[in-house]
Amino acid sequence: MNPPELAQKLTTLWPPANWLDVNVGIAVSGGADSVALLLSLVQIKKELGGDGNLAVFHVNHHLRGADSDLEQAWVEELCNKLGIPFEALQGDVAGRAETEGDGIEAAARQERYALLTQAAERHGARFLALAHTQNDQVETILFRLLRGTGLRGIGGINRSRVLTPTLTLIRPLLTCTREEILAYLSDREQSYCTDLSNEDCRFTRNRLRNELLPKLRCDYGLNIDQALLRLSEQASEVQSYIEAEARKLLTTSLDGLKTNAQAGSNSMKLKSSALVNHPPLLVREALRIAWREAGLAEQEMNFQWWCKLASLVQGDSSAAVLSLPGNVRAQSANDLLLLEW
Amino acid sequence: MNPPELAQKLTTLWPPANWLDVNVGIAVSGGADSVALLLSLVQIKKELGGDGNLAVFHVNHHLRGADSDLEQAWVEELCNKLGIPFEALQGDVAGRAETEGDGIEAAARQERYALLTQAAERHGARFLALAHTQNDQVETILFRLLRGTGLRGIGGINRSRVLTPTLTLIRPLLTCTREEILAYLSDREQSYCTDLSNEDCRFTRNRLRNELLPKLRCDYGLNIDQALLRLSEQASEVQSYIEAEARKLLTTSLDGLKTNAQAGSNSMKLKSSALVNHPPLLVREALRIAWREAGLAEQEMNFQWWCKLASLVQGDSSAAVLSLPGNVRAQSANDLLLLEW
Repeated sequence: MNPPELAQKLTTLWPPANWLDVNVGIAVSGGADSVALLLSLVQIKKELGGDGNLAVFHVNHHLRGADSDLEQAWVEELCNKLGIPFEALQGDVAGRAETEGDGIEAAARQERYALLTQAAERHGARFLALAHTQNDQVETILFRLLRGTGLRGIGGINRSRVLTPTLTLIRPLLTCTREEILAYLSDREQSYCTDLSNEDCRFTRNRLRNELLPKLRCDYGLNIDQALLRLSEQASEVQSYIEAEARKLLTTSLDGLKTNAQAGSNSMKLKSSALVNHPPLLVREALRIAWREAGLAEQEMNFQWWCKLASLVQGDSSAAVLSLPGNVRAQSANDLLLLEW
Repeated sequence: MNPPELAQKLTTLWPPANWLDVNVGIAVSGGADSVALLLSLVQIKKELGGDGNLAVFHVNHHLRGADSDLEQAWVEELCNKLGIPFEALQGDVAGRAETEGDGIEAAARQERYALLTQAAERHGARFLALAHTQNDQVETILFRLLRGTGLRGIGGINRSRVLTPTLTLIRPLLTCTREEILAYLSDREQSYCTDLSNEDCRFTRNRLRNELLPKLRCDYGLNIDQALLRLSEQASEVQSYIEAEARKLLTTSLDGLKTNAQAGSNSMKLKSSALVNHPPLLVREALRIAWREAGLAEQEMNFQWWCKLASLVQGDSSAAVLSLPGNVRAQSANDLLLLEW
């Protein structure tokens, strides 16, 4: 294990020229991954300079009593030592989460992203850096795969994502493994906090991390990480291609139907003839893009619903009207698909 | 569990009108799946008639000493009772397999398919029916997924496959679960052989079946079967679409280059300009189809090789010549990709 590996991978994934001259917010929980992210960004900044500033945000969900506050204090002290501005963001997920187990994890994640985005905007940050690693990527792919989210889901975590017109989320450690991170920290004799909730096997994600993945790697002797990463890359590539083709199809089917451009509209029209002789998977994808861009909620539109809607457009459906999730009504007549909500 | 389910699913997947008037060979190991396949086909034949005949083929690999011969005798007796012609096919995998464990399983599979195809042809069979179930499908998808075969691999086992111009392999039980099969047999008080090598956890496939899948279903409470089947269907659909698009691309790139049609040729030319502005995944697929149709071996052409070859065609490669697996030489010049072997 060669420690310089980490900084190399980081700068390949996120070239310093892209961020040295703008403000960057770093989410630091105090765990190994985020401490390594902080240290490596500080180090690059020190070596290469630039006009931008770094700032650290620490979300305290107050889920583990005094431990949560100790971690906050620990991260604050580390930032003081490094001379980086620190801000603690106070969460209240316990007060509003409806359930325990996976429910709390999901609520905490949602709260964390909201708090971090607000903080980054307050600090005029152009980037918000998160410490997700290749191990997180593998876990996410396997988790989604086992849950049945289909091809789209196994595309995995994105390297970057636009949060607001001026703020982009970035994951500079996404190609680094846990081993590389621990070697990097050990080389610098840098300690970190161990979040015991990560070892709690009540949470499905943690069971994948602590039980299933080690079993597949060791007992089965499989190179499961590389297998999942490769599958995920292929799925992403295929998905991008299909989305691009579907967008062309959608553009054709919207052509000349000017009413669609009106803001605040509660209906949408598509020309059925533009969609009718294309593969159902492209038609489903085109409908999904139209749906999303109209601001309709996708959650309840499962695979079966998209198939039904595509059948309606393509004239393979016995029905002429469909009542879809989210109180959306779909009607097919005179070469038009009309969606109303 | 409702036993008639099995016959219903079978006739949906393989309508009797397709096979009642032709000869059908049935591969019967004596295990629950193949015994259920035999019984249900005999029952449908009895009820609906038709001009074709059924025949049973049993492959004896002689891998488990006296047990192998007892199974052969058991299947023969069952066929006598049912009044169906029986033929035992003698394998010799132990004599030629290089390794133990997975090596023997793969060699046995290869030998089985070869023996069954020959026997079916001798009997003038139009179909060779195999007893793969939905459980086999799930195991195959998971196995390939963990091994890292990518999107193409997780398409899973095909419902049917053309073996020779006059013989098609069919898997009529591919949507039936093991539970449905056991219920069907129990309802008829029909016994079957238990192959103890199926419970041998040395073989990776058996470990997936007996350890990993039950763990995911029960301990993790996941509907892993449906998740994998859905992913597999999506992967198949996407793969078919990409192959169709890649074939169009290939046709354009071969257009006018008549030399490609010559039999026994040991070279192939493609027009680079027809490929240059298309997504790499389509170009890779087009090259793969061309490769296969030229009769070149695909085994050693892994993902990296296809990427290199696509880069060469698309002009993104620094090299102008590539030495590919199977002694294939690729050269790019004057708007032509030349493959020689």
